[in-house]
Amino acid sequence: MLSLQSNTHQSWLLQVAGNLNEILVDHAHCEYKAAATAMSIMGTYVDHRDLVVAMTVIVQEEMEHFHLVMKILDERGIPFRKQRPGHYGRELNALLRPHEPDRAVDRLLVSGLIEARSCERFSLLATHVDDRELSSFYSSLFETEASHHSTYVRLAKTFASDEIVKARLNELSAAESQIIGRGNPLPRMHS
Amino acid sequence: MLSLQSNTHQSWLLQVAGNLNEILVDHAHCEYKAAATAMSIMGTYVDHRDLVVAMTVIVQEEMEHFHLVMKILDERGIPFRKQRPGHYGRELNALLRPHEPDRAVDRLLVSGLIEARSCERFSLLATHVDDRELSSFYSSLFETEASHHSTYVRLAKTFASDEIVKARLNELSAAESQIIGRGNPLPRMHS
Repeated sequence: MLSLQSNTHQSWLLQVAGNLNEILVDHAHCEYKAAATAMSIMGTYVDHRDLVVAMTVIVQEEMEHFHLVMKILDERGIPFRKQRPGHYGRELNALLRPHEPDRAVDRLLVSGLIEARSCERFSLLATHVDDRELSSFYSSLFETEASHHSTYVRLAKTFASDEIVKARLNELSAAESQIIGRGNPLPRMHS
Repeated sequence: MLSLQSNTHQSWLLQVAGNLNEILVDHAHCEYKAAATAMSIMGTYVDHRDLVVAMTVIVQEEMEHFHLVMKILDERGIPFRKQRPGHYGRELNALLRPHEPDRAVDRLLVSGLIEARSCERFSLLATHVDDRELSSFYSSLFETEASHHSTYVRLAKTFASDEIVKARLNELSAAESQIIGRGNPLPRMHS
């Protein structure tokens, strides 16, 4: 369902287990970036009515998640601060083709893949994190992020045929697995 | 209260009266840009807790307004499309000083002034537009946009003293009056 071509390695869970505070801060940044990306896609394709409506919903939902993470940070006395980003988003964005409508397809599919990977990792965190509040929080996010993945893939099909989108999703998803598979010394939601 | 140094000239009302559909499309773009600006300010100053919370509220409210305008466009069969922007936002943004914390003060005050001008114009439209649905809609937006103005000015004071902010607001507001006073052949919310 989630178009991913690899499962997260056990080593990621070990990496984040000792750095849950840093993961929470990164998570807030991820929700922010997801909202900002949806806002930006919306601004580029304003004449696509379905896309505009779907993006406003995603912006609202990601901002709600952002608020929820901020609340947890507050309760735990963890300051929300700038953080050195991992390479994941940057490397995925480097795959976007420059010309329309290819670019629209790629922006939507890359966003969809990031949502899918977040989903997979929320699900892992929900199962493996000892902290009850956090595991139930991660579990609560799964469904919305999965629906964002489907929305992005569906919208990509308004810019190219089902076959073209399927083939490109396959390519981008293979690249995503490579990128995330390399890991990152910084403990991040997508390290 | 709104920090503006000029009232809108009667000629603007004459310009928009015959172009209400175009104004509605521009209005949707304005709500989008207001949300995108708040999102961008938030992304730059994530370590300012008050600002981050206030910006997420503004993003949510502007997106709600955006939805309301889209609903009116739909009901009237007016397509939401790209539109040649007026010069207002571009000229105001050209006034931003490049170095922090001046830049933060200016971004916040310019955003506050745009909200103030929107407010003034919503109030004019509410009083002068014959279309009842529209006049009541514009009237309903007044209060939120006025509160956004106050929020931006208040936040500017977290980056500089009250006196400095007051003096800079005075300068930027004088420039705003000049920019809007020149008018624009395109009928826009800020023409």
